[in-house]
Amino acid sequence: MKLYEELAESLRQRIEQGFYAGGDRMPSIRTLVREHGVSVTTAQEAYRQLEDAGLVESRPKSGYFARVRCSTPELPRVGRPVRRPIEVSKWEDVLNMLGAETPSKVFSLGHAMPDFTGPTLKPLLKLWSMQARRSDMRGLEYDSLKGTEELRTQVARLGNHSGCQLDPDELIITTGCQEALFCALRAVTQPGDVVAVDSPCFYGAMQAIKANDLRVMEIPTHAETGLSIEALELALEQWPIKAVLVTPTCNNPLGYTMPESRKRDLLLLAQRFDIAIIEDDIYGDLAYAWPRPRAIKAFDTDGRVLLCSSFSKTLAPGLRLGWIAPGRYRTEVIHNKFVSTAASSTLSQLAVAQFIAEGGYERHLRKMRAQYQRNRDLMVNWLEQHFPAGVRISFPQGGYLLWLEFASEVDCVELNRELSDTQFRIAPGVLFSASGKYRNCMRLNFVNGLDRQTEEALLTLAALIDQRYAKAG
Amino acid sequence: MKLYEELAESLRQRIEQGFYAGGDRMPSIRTLVREHGVSVTTAQEAYRQLEDAGLVESRPKSGYFARVRCSTPELPRVGRPVRRPIEVSKWEDVLNMLGAETPSKVFSLGHAMPDFTGPTLKPLLKLWSMQARRSDMRGLEYDSLKGTEELRTQVARLGNHSGCQLDPDELIITTGCQEALFCALRAVTQPGDVVAVDSPCFYGAMQAIKANDLRVMEIPTHAETGLSIEALELALEQWPIKAVLVTPTCNNPLGYTMPESRKRDLLLLAQRFDIAIIEDDIYGDLAYAWPRPRAIKAFDTDGRVLLCSSFSKTLAPGLRLGWIAPGRYRTEVIHNKFVSTAASSTLSQLAVAQFIAEGGYERHLRKMRAQYQRNRDLMVNWLEQHFPAGVRISFPQGGYLLWLEFASEVDCVELNRELSDTQFRIAPGVLFSASGKYRNCMRLNFVNGLDRQTEEALLTLAALIDQRYAKAG
Repeated sequence: MKLYEELAESLRQRIEQGFYAGGDRMPSIRTLVREHGVSVTTAQEAYRQLEDAGLVESRPKSGYFARVRCSTPELPRVGRPVRRPIEVSKWEDVLNMLGAETPSKVFSLGHAMPDFTGPTLKPLLKLWSMQARRSDMRGLEYDSLKGTEELRTQVARLGNHSGCQLDPDELIITTGCQEALFCALRAVTQPGDVVAVDSPCFYGAMQAIKANDLRVMEIPTHAETGLSIEALELALEQWPIKAVLVTPTCNNPLGYTMPESRKRDLLLLAQRFDIAIIEDDIYGDLAYAWPRPRAIKAFDTDGRVLLCSSFSKTLAPGLRLGWIAPGRYRTEVIHNKFVSTAASSTLSQLAVAQFIAEGGYERHLRKMRAQYQRNRDLMVNWLEQHFPAGVRISFPQGGYLLWLEFASEVDCVELNRELSDTQFRIAPGVLFSASGKYRNCMRLNFVNGLDRQTEEALLTLAALIDQRYAKAG
Repeated sequence: MKLYEELAESLRQRIEQGFYAGGDRMPSIRTLVREHGVSVTTAQEAYRQLEDAGLVESRPKSGYFARVRCSTPELPRVGRPVRRPIEVSKWEDVLNMLGAETPSKVFSLGHAMPDFTGPTLKPLLKLWSMQARRSDMRGLEYDSLKGTEELRTQVARLGNHSGCQLDPDELIITTGCQEALFCALRAVTQPGDVVAVDSPCFYGAMQAIKANDLRVMEIPTHAETGLSIEALELALEQWPIKAVLVTPTCNNPLGYTMPESRKRDLLLLAQRFDIAIIEDDIYGDLAYAWPRPRAIKAFDTDGRVLLCSSFSKTLAPGLRLGWIAPGRYRTEVIHNKFVSTAASSTLSQLAVAQFIAEGGYERHLRKMRAQYQRNRDLMVNWLEQHFPAGVRISFPQGGYLLWLEFASEVDCVELNRELSDTQFRIAPGVLFSASGKYRNCMRLNFVNGLDRQTEEALLTLAALIDQRYAKAG
């Protein structure tokens, strides 16, 4: 055991024995150096280990603190989606939630925009600004169809974190993860085909299924272990399913990460039935545990996994930069990429590639993981105290999204409508179902933790639920 | 007649009487002021009128010169595409031309990248750089699904140039014109449908037709007046065509602008057969004549025209910014936009909107129109002198692309292959046909005029044709 590991271990024991409670200030670096006779680097590395383990957090200019931890709340129940392939509806609700037609100053607890106001993103903006002024004006050129070599190289390198051996020449940069999912779906299906998804499922993926004249087979999904392999197997035996689309790591909206053994099982099942796996990994790098969980793609032996991701949740969505590692479907994906957008924004690619190369991405991730994990704990504790009894709450393993399930009579579409007098909005659960299930569920983000505005919004919401469903409770 | 119009008229007469020959220096502003007793503003406005009329050009720091003009060359013949709906092939050739898989330092006379090295684009880069550093970091946000209000407002304003009354709220910003065309096609067709196109036709549009499982009906097209209305009418009587996709202004690759009367005829025909018109206007703002020709959309009374365009040819393709005015198909287009890329790059939108608002776009257009028109004349003259007898050359009315038709035995795919030892490449005509016609044709750009490298490339090409087809000549 190395010196910093020994030090980290001794601090870990003291935290777990309750010597440092959640929120307590940990000894400063200087104190550790003096008391343990170690170097500054060793003390720093020990705290880094504890941070990765989710035991301490650093606060700028204040030092290290033992994390406030919370236990798993009562989790949402496994959903009961329609047990046959169906068409996707709910576009009007999605459009309404996106606010595309009536942009306004609403404060949406339902959106999935990350926090990009922190200091660790500032260097990216600086690089962007510099790239815009480079004398060869490369940012203005058509980028290669598959993306700049600089960014593909960096994305391939980041693949190591998720256990994936990615070849820069195989990767294709896309306009966000949405384009990656869209191209992947088109590559592995024909109109009329059936695609299996975890349920609840990201509405963007489902709307892409709809747009391609596909039907969706929603698979019951556990809030801790993910899509039911058993239910998927039954569905595969019964229906002509061509692909399964899943978000197995830091799922949206449920927040779970499928255990690795289940990821392997899913892959084996896909191999047995010879179907493709479209793996949405967009929140994967925001897993609280580090090194982060491996992607299904990491175990792929015959190129049937199309790994889709982006920088929209880890850095910023305005970049519109995603990517796809398309496995054996590369020919189809590159044609789809060409016909849908021809190329991706060159300048953003150059800026992000440089940001990653200079270590900025990993610095930013470290900060955001800690922030989001802290926010999760605060939020779950708060909701358990202030929300109606019987509410079930997901326990995300990464990212910044919560899924809430209320008593069956609570109607979140109606709640959202009643909120229209306020500046607050939520994302009702029906968006995440092809057929409008999950009416008693909603997705909340905890990007900003319990700041004043969020707390006010949540209190408004809790009061509204109490008022409307008091007799039901 | 205003004073500057009188002055412009007298200068125009002297040019047309041969008093100033092509390339001659025109009187300086100071001379005009002294000799005609007018103000500096009047003299400047007179030259501005003559510039718009294509009679003089300004050269930075040198003053005004009478333009070298050339007469219409022998134009390419009307093509003879397959006379029934067919599937689109040639993707391998397109991929090869794009150089997506083998990026290298080739000098391509075939590509369609504009010149973005001039001083009039510098302010855009500066604005981009500034927007990247704005303190609210708005460039990082998810943009509204339909695009930023700033850019939609400016695009609507620019619509006046093409005679279109565009409503900012109806416009949708896209990731380049390719996404606009892709969304438009998907909005007006179902898999299996037939789409009519001008022939030769931009390969990106045809590959989008292919990707959506549509068949294409290529309509014979005249190098001066565009798609044959008569042939389209026959096709509409015979086949279940759902839409016609055309580039009627500064066509790619033929360069013609359909006369306004024929644009109206096309619209009437579309009304009669109740089909949609997808109008690609991507080169429209580069028309040499100013005010620019009106778009078909300008005459649209029932929302059947989907106007698609972008800044890729007028400013720079790396921006990935296009737009669509979808008429009555807005609901379908906005769904397609959402599922394919969710949003467009926010920062580029903000920078371009500001650039337009500050007058930078129109300044840049003025310069580029003059540059490309000058290049066209130089290029056509040069090709008539140096290229094999019998070559037919298009006479573009805008943009920077030429179409060359050689004797029938000349094989441009083979020529391109033989060029593989050099650093030069062309775009063979087969890319612009669904079935591989136009083998004896090629597209050349004249973005850089007759600079050293272009002239070297063209001489290499001419020598190769002479050497290989001498006996044929």
